[in-house]
This record gives sequence, C-alpha cells and structure tokens, in this order.
Amino acid sequence: MVATFQNDLFLRACKRLPVERTPIWVMRQAGRYLPEYRAVRQKYDFLTMCKTPDLATEVTLQPIDLIGVDAAIIFSDILVIPEAMGMHLEMHEGIGPVFPHPIRNESDAQTLNKIDPTVDLKYVLDAVALTKKELNRRVPLIGFSGSPWTLLAYMVEGQGSKTFSKVKYLIYNNPKLAHRLLDKIADAVAIYLCAKIETGVDAVQIFDTWGGILSQDDFEEFSLNYIRKIISEVKGKGVPVIMFAKGVHYHLNNLAESGADVLGLDWTMNIGDVRKKVGDKVALQGNLDPTILYADHEKIKYEARKILKSFGKGSGHIFNLGHGILPDVPPENLKALVNFVKEESVSYHMDD
Amino acid sequence: MVATFQNDLFLRACKRLPVERTPIWVMRQAGRYLPEYRAVRQKYDFLTMCKTPDLATEVTLQPIDLIGVDAAIIFSDILVIPEAMGMHLEMHEGIGPVFPHPIRNESDAQTLNKIDPTVDLKYVLDAVALTKKELNRRVPLIGFSGSPWTLLAYMVEGQGSKTFSKVKYLIYNNPKLAHRLLDKIADAVAIYLCAKIETGVDAVQIFDTWGGILSQDDFEEFSLNYIRKIISEVKGKGVPVIMFAKGVHYHLNNLAESGADVLGLDWTMNIGDVRKKVGDKVALQGNLDPTILYADHEKIKYEARKILKSFGKGSGHIFNLGHGILPDVPPENLKALVNFVKEESVSYHMDD
Repeated sequence: MVATFQNDLFLRACKRLPVERTPIWVMRQAGRYLPEYRAVRQKYDFLTMCKTPDLATEVTLQPIDLIGVDAAIIFSDILVIPEAMGMHLEMHEGIGPVFPHPIRNESDAQTLNKIDPTVDLKYVLDAVALTKKELNRRVPLIGFSGSPWTLLAYMVEGQGSKTFSKVKYLIYNNPKLAHRLLDKIADAVAIYLCAKIETGVDAVQIFDTWGGILSQDDFEEFSLNYIRKIISEVKGKGVPVIMFAKGVHYHLNNLAESGADVLGLDWTMNIGDVRKKVGDKVALQGNLDPTILYADHEKIKYEARKILKSFGKGSGHIFNLGHGILPDVPPENLKALVNFVKEESVSYHMDD
Repeated sequence: MVATFQNDLFLRACKRLPVERTPIWVMRQAGRYLPEYRAVRQKYDFLTMCKTPDLATEVTLQPIDLIGVDAAIIFSDILVIPEAMGMHLEMHEGIGPVFPHPIRNESDAQTLNKIDPTVDLKYVLDAVALTKKELNRRVPLIGFSGSPWTLLAYMVEGQGSKTFSKVKYLIYNNPKLAHRLLDKIADAVAIYLCAKIETGVDAVQIFDTWGGILSQDDFEEFSLNYIRKIISEVKGKGVPVIMFAKGVHYHLNNLAESGADVLGLDWTMNIGDVRKKVGDKVALQGNLDPTILYADHEKIKYEARKILKSFGKGSGHIFNLGHGILPDVPPENLKALVNFVKEESVSYHMDD
C-alpha cells in the first residue's frame, strides 16, 4: 500500500523505515496564516467550512500545493465529536468554540448520545473521501481526534480555561461520573477514527492538548488509560497512530508504550534526549517552537538544524512544530522551513 | 536570628535544618478566596491596596490569623517593578493587569528608568516594615519578585497572552535588545529584593511564571542566566532564596545549582523523584494541585498525604500548592489542608 504514494516518506518515517530525507508537515497547516485560507474563511464561518466537504477539501489541499508539506491533515475540529454526541456548539469571535450547555452533572451526562459516524459525522467522512480523490495519492492523509480527557475538559468547562476549575472539580468530586463520561467519549473517538480509516485516511493523530494540566497520577488515571483504550481499538486497522500530548514531560515512557507508533513532542522537550529514552519503541514527531517562525530565515534554519542534529542520523523522525502554526506567521517563513528541512535532512539519512 | 521567631519552622526548612513538623504556606494566600480579603477589596481597587501600607499589611496578616500558615508573604504584585521603571499600569476587570504602552522597540526601551526602591517603591518597603511590626515575630515574612523573563514577557505583551507571540518575536528578531532589557530588569529586581531584605523580609521568592513557554536553550539564555545574576546579588544578604519556575521540568538540576536555597515545584512534578535528583542541593517547596482544594476534606487529605509520603522523612520540605490558590476555593478547605499537614507531617520528622 505504502508504495502506491508518489511521496510516502511520512508513512515510512512513522514505521521507522529508511527514508531519503526527513518528512515534514505542521500542525494547523490548513489554517489562518495562509491568505488562501482566509479568502475561503471570509466567505464561510468555521463550522460551515468543517461541514462542507468541498470547502474542507479545498483548505486541506492548500498547504500541499502552496507549501509542499509531505502529508495532508483533514481540515476539521476536535469538537465535532461532542457536537455529534448532542452538544450544541457555537463559535464566538475572540473566544473560540463555546458549548452554551456544558456537562456538569449526571443529568447533563444523560443527554450525550452514542454516535454513528456514518450518520452523525458523515460530513467528515465525505470530506476525507473527496480529499483522498483530489490528493490522487500525492501524499498520505492524516485524520485526527482529541483525546477523551481533552474533549471532556472542553465539554465540562464549556470553553477554554486558564485553570480548568470545573473539570477538575468534577474529577475530584465525582470521579465515577468522570470515568463514565471518559469511557463514553473514548468509545466515540475509537469508532470515529476507525470510520475515518475505513474511508481512507492513512494515519491518525490523537491530540491530548490538556494532558499537561494534570498531576502525574491524574494523567495516568484520567487521560492515559483512555488513550490506551482507543489505540488498542484502532491499532488493528493497520495505519500508524501518532500520539501528541502537550506539556506531558513525565510519562514519556508510558506514552511510548501506549501502542502508538509515533510520539509527538512539544517544543520544550529535547528531541535527542527523548530519542535516547524511548526512541527504540516509537518514531518521534516535532518539535520546533512555533514562534521561531516569527524570526528571519537564518534563525529559522539555525533552530531547525539544531533539531535535526539533536535527533541525529537514521529514520523515525517526522519534522513538525511543537504545537500548531500561529495565525500571524508569514507563509514564506514556513516555506523556508519546509525547503530547508527537505535539503538539510538528506545527510542524516546517508550511509557514513 | 532564626531563634527569635515564635514559629521559625519555615526558615529552618529552607535551610534543611531539623524541624518538628513540615511547615506550610500557600502562594496567593492573601487573596480573593478569603471573604475578609474581599471585604477590603470591595472598598479599594487592587493597586490602591498594593500602594497603601495599612491595607497591604491588613491582608498580608489575614491568612496568618485565619488559616494558621507558617509564613506570611507581603501582599503586592510582580508588576510594581515595571511600573516603578516608568510603565503606566492599569487593572482591567476580566483581563487583569494591562500596560497600555508596551515595550516593543529601542525607543520604548529608552523610556525605562533605573529604579531607586527607597523612592519608587517606598510603599512596598513601608508595607514590609509595618507588617513586620504587626507580625511581632510570630512567623517569618517573605518578599517576592517576578523573574526578569516573566516581567519582560508582561512588559512586551502588555497583558497576559496564550502564545506570547510578541515577546518571542522580540527575542528571535532583536536578541540584543531583549538581553539589554533583561539585564536592566535584573538590576531592578536585585536592588528591589535587597531593599526588601534590608527593610525586614526574612526570605525572598522569585517567580518565573512564564519560564515554561521557552525551549530548553531559550530558557537557559533568556531566563536562567538572569535568575542566577539576581541570586548572586541577593545571596550575600543572608536570607533564603526560593526559586519557583512553573512548567520547567527540564533544567531542574540547573535551577538547583542557581544558588537558590529552595526550589518551588508545580503540581506536575513528582516531589519524591525531584528530591532524589536534586534534594541534596536545595530544599523543596510544593506541590499540591491547587484544584484539589475543590474536593472534599478526605480527598484533600489523601492527596496531601501522597505528597508528604513522596518527599519522605527528613527536613527540607516546605508544603505549598503547586501554583497560587484559586479565588473560588472555600477557605475551610485550605484550613483543613493546613491542619492536616501540621498533624500528619510530625511522623516524618521523628527518629525511627
């Protein structure tokens, strides 16, 4: 299967197979930093873009054509799952996504439905199918989901939060309900990812954006357990699973043993140190500080070179940012990064 | 000097001297969670409270009298230094502190003055003197400052930020200016802390709240270097220095070797593991997740016990939260924590 892509570097790196150079894609690569994205966004609101396969496909393809990254990631949002489970989702300018009726107690929890992705998230699957067709096997396509913990945090808080007081209140005062919810969300995530894979995505990434707000024991209990569960259910489908947990510096070994093929690293990690620790178990993805893309091209190259050097020779590295690309980054800076990594990384994959 | 306090447990623990039980205080203990604080705050705005020694003293003493913590920390704000350097500071409801004219370039930087704390921050020193008098040597008094990096982040952003794009832009595009500013701020912090010590504070804490947004190399270059500089200048004054850097899981060894007597830990660290790593160099302060105080008393005790047990027997532990107490915590929950730590920790300081 792998051999049928024009460019399968990303998939080979996920499996730590030999590559001619290090592949690169970036989180949020289909996003606001691109004028071509903003031109679409000006005409349609964010959720309409997610729910209209033509539009989702159009912006998914933009960074492939314009920037030259080695993988596409389907344009969507992690909150489509809670919405499919029955929560009303709104986008508020300047705040971001908002659930006006957050989940706080047993009776709120009762309102959440089991999802059937072929019905409730048909628009995502249609976008996947259309994108696959338009990609025409140029590069692989990644599907994604939030982790159960990260989704629960949003569903309980109702919106982003500095302290996550409400979801913490829930796990400390009604852990049984929290576990029941996490279990239900994990089921939804697993069948959603499986449906995406069946429709054609070539890899999946799980984002645990808010894992880092938990203490070490709480992370194990409320996040890692459910990540493991999802991976074990998705694993049989035969595509690589990428696990990205932000701010989780402890538990790197546990994450590497979660069944994931690839561990995504934020920019506060030293990729070389992590490789020494867990690199024989998983490939590593990352991890340039996204704000480096504000700098001039020389500085961008200097920092990218540091990461390539830190990882060192051999396969199993997928270059990426350590978090999503920021909306006010000049696209030519990302292009400079991508071109540099493509060139510079060649020597890391040659025999001595 | 130490012997003249009615309760000097905190100071002895800072120096890793034997204690009868583990001392406890909590970050932001003079704060909104206390109805007695809110009663004062209703009559005066935040900055007026900082700048009126009577009011600052009143709220500084509240947690000593009402909660029974083992140390007082002078009520103030880290942003009094940039204000003393000439920046206009406003408090905006719902946003927090705002600098309407942030520092972005060379000419903005020129507007910053060298400070004379006996003039520009006389109100803080007056509050320290009055608090010392009112405390009447019941417990020690802590003074504090933000780290140069954390202060620079606010001064450049102009307010809190999710991405810290503007200060990152500065360090990547004009590192010379960033270093000049950090150096100037470090000088101000050092003379400010020295003046506080001369006026009577018994320990100082440096908060690097935003150190964790930096990559490992950037933390070393833009934060740790200036922390070291301040500590070397404050060190001769003979009071313990506590270094609290949030989210900095790497560089724990470097922080332990920065000259600080005590390392403050956020709640994502395992205090026992950190003690094994660096505990022969420094005392450790922390590190209960602040949101645990939303739970019932049994859960609070369970989690506090875990931390005491993780640190283990012997001196060199100051119990604290892993970050500031949250404004919506019931004061009786903090009181339950304080009473429990006082009782439960006795057995960790007895000979076997």
